[in-house]
Amino acid sequence: MRIELVNTGDELLLGDTINTNAAWLGQQIAALGLMVSRHLVVSDGAVIKEAMAEAASRSDVVLVSGGLGPTSDDLTRESIAELLGLPMELNEGIKSHLEAFFAKRNRSMSASNLKQAMVPRGAIVMDNPFGTAPGLYFPAELSHSRGWDTHFFLLPGPPRELKPMMETLVEPRLRAMLPDGADRRVLYLKITGVGESDIVEKVEKKLEAISGLTLGYCIRNGDVDVRLSGAAEPVDIGAVIVREHLGTCIVSEDRRIIEEVLVQTLLERGETLSTAESCTGGYMASRITDVSGSSRVFGHGFVTYANEAKQKHLGVSAELLAEHGAVSEPVAKAMAEGALATSGADHALALTGVAGPTGGSDEKPVGTVFISLASKNASTIVKRYYYPGTRDRFKLLSSQAALEMLRRRLLGLPLA
Amino acid sequence: MRIELVNTGDELLLGDTINTNAAWLGQQIAALGLMVSRHLVVSDGAVIKEAMAEAASRSDVVLVSGGLGPTSDDLTRESIAELLGLPMELNEGIKSHLEAFFAKRNRSMSASNLKQAMVPRGAIVMDNPFGTAPGLYFPAELSHSRGWDTHFFLLPGPPRELKPMMETLVEPRLRAMLPDGADRRVLYLKITGVGESDIVEKVEKKLEAISGLTLGYCIRNGDVDVRLSGAAEPVDIGAVIVREHLGTCIVSEDRRIIEEVLVQTLLERGETLSTAESCTGGYMASRITDVSGSSRVFGHGFVTYANEAKQKHLGVSAELLAEHGAVSEPVAKAMAEGALATSGADHALALTGVAGPTGGSDEKPVGTVFISLASKNASTIVKRYYYPGTRDRFKLLSSQAALEMLRRRLLGLPLA
Repeated sequence: MRIELVNTGDELLLGDTINTNAAWLGQQIAALGLMVSRHLVVSDGAVIKEAMAEAASRSDVVLVSGGLGPTSDDLTRESIAELLGLPMELNEGIKSHLEAFFAKRNRSMSASNLKQAMVPRGAIVMDNPFGTAPGLYFPAELSHSRGWDTHFFLLPGPPRELKPMMETLVEPRLRAMLPDGADRRVLYLKITGVGESDIVEKVEKKLEAISGLTLGYCIRNGDVDVRLSGAAEPVDIGAVIVREHLGTCIVSEDRRIIEEVLVQTLLERGETLSTAESCTGGYMASRITDVSGSSRVFGHGFVTYANEAKQKHLGVSAELLAEHGAVSEPVAKAMAEGALATSGADHALALTGVAGPTGGSDEKPVGTVFISLASKNASTIVKRYYYPGTRDRFKLLSSQAALEMLRRRLLGLPLA
Repeated sequence: MRIELVNTGDELLLGDTINTNAAWLGQQIAALGLMVSRHLVVSDGAVIKEAMAEAASRSDVVLVSGGLGPTSDDLTRESIAELLGLPMELNEGIKSHLEAFFAKRNRSMSASNLKQAMVPRGAIVMDNPFGTAPGLYFPAELSHSRGWDTHFFLLPGPPRELKPMMETLVEPRLRAMLPDGADRRVLYLKITGVGESDIVEKVEKKLEAISGLTLGYCIRNGDVDVRLSGAAEPVDIGAVIVREHLGTCIVSEDRRIIEEVLVQTLLERGETLSTAESCTGGYMASRITDVSGSSRVFGHGFVTYANEAKQKHLGVSAELLAEHGAVSEPVAKAMAEGALATSGADHALALTGVAGPTGGSDEKPVGTVFISLASKNASTIVKRYYYPGTRDRFKLLSSQAALEMLRRRLLGLPLA
């Protein structure tokens, strides 16, 4: 089954918006064991018609996003009606939805919005609970008049409207078109602390030997997602192999990221966490507090960039700082233990390092970081890591290593 | 002048990589007063040939990225040679560059890398200081044999290689093709604290009346970039109008973001900043410490998620918390003043609010935030804001409003 993706929007061509929809849709389609063949972005307006015709002439399915809004630039609806020779009709259901949508928000509906209630005859309306633009599905028979056998799906551009519509209304229809669609599933095993090449070495050959299994890797925020897709049986067999060879490095099998796993694990155990950050500058605390519910497990965070702050708030001694320097194993340990003591938390993570671009030395080059974990009921550990590169990458990988240190302690796993 | 963009890479179609190159290239081209007409992504391999042919048949310039690597999937070089009927030749300059590149890294050069030294006859090599894949420029006359008059630029896919090559080697050539290219410039005025619709209302008509000026808006991380492009004179006239009507809201005219402006301003004044964050959970500190050099102006940050932390580290009284609640004007003020006192900094910013999705009330719904700024030599200010929506957006806009509060104080501007 061949699928093409067509987006419309000047903001994409001008670079004012990064096209995250395309990547997200690509992943959803990959999860069905398929791959987008082409992805085309065209301007707002009438060129969408030509783009849809080109895509349809080559494809079984064309996914279109954008151009369903109320403005004069939004011509996707009209263009497909012209393309397939379908008259436009007022859809009373959409009209009622629009009226309710505006009434609920105490806004009056403009005449231009009524345009969104016009539907090419025969199209199946896909409800949009999150916006005014409904999606439209054109089954393949509507394209037979053009000599094609192509299904069109028209989706709204805003991600919060497009994503639920894709998941609940488009994907079931795509599955139904695949011979083994109902049985087809996807499993993401999120691996941390192991490089892609090591993962490849450990499991790739064994996974590739499984008939009917499609394997993919996705590097994301310092982790590697191993994606297994296919029918239930080969996916299950593949998962067993990944668990056998990478088990302790698997953070989740449901796409949760490490901070989500940690917050939930701490909640379940009724334990709390504090942080003391130098080089990561609050980034780790921010990751933890991105998780809803984190306030029940995270109470105190310190960003002790200055030595004076390490002394005053964490009780790191001036002698220790003078003797070993702020970026050192003893200072990392003292920061973690100081944060644990002052916050009364069950666990405290501390980081001190050289984020760069300046401040490195031969002994401790830019990218060096010491990470320490202190816990009420276990001895403090400290480890040295090295993440050269940009400041962003340094903050990401350092905080990732720190969170992984805690995950391993909570699960009783040895430090990798 | 019509420009199309063609990317190759399965990782883009599978959604494993978000296509940030496309947006960046779109912006660079918009800055020349042009707009990408179409952007097409195709798979690795031979389909790139057909994609380039389609684009060339419609365009004056085709920018291609990806497929210049050493693997068997990297077929962009070979494809364009076939397309334009050019024989492949070994380029001794590239070969030497490759040998030096690997020698410097103590790595041996594989035979497959030598493929990168093969160049279609007549193509102009564009050096790549950051990788092994040189760029290639095919002036329009090389496409005359196909009946086209199209310039091709082939760029490597990795952003750190593509960006400098685009800026230093492609853009000057594009400018030279434009009648007024040498004189063409772009100015970004970064506006904060004002919505796009207000900006439109204040300046759009006046700017649109300037002959030869192209106007664009780009919403980015809570700010709006007003983009003026054209010849020097209309851009200058436009800038005067924006400064006149939005002057105090202009954060920078050189694309610097507010945290960069603040760190530099504090450095110049020899002043320091502390932060006390509840609802933003360290995100504001992380933004500040993303700026290289921030360690000289930022020493102490507190993430006081728990009431106990607000009391212990910032000296907020239990009575105040009990009487007004943690999310309140008096507590925000006490947090800022406490952070100022304990850190000894010249300024302290504090935030307390309801990030959601839970925890809101009728009086203080999700999205409510109180922001306070205390300074050694000025009275403390507190202001209430409301940023409903996702947690990410709440953290972004809240920290943005706080940083803007400090910017206005440092510049002696009234609070907006």
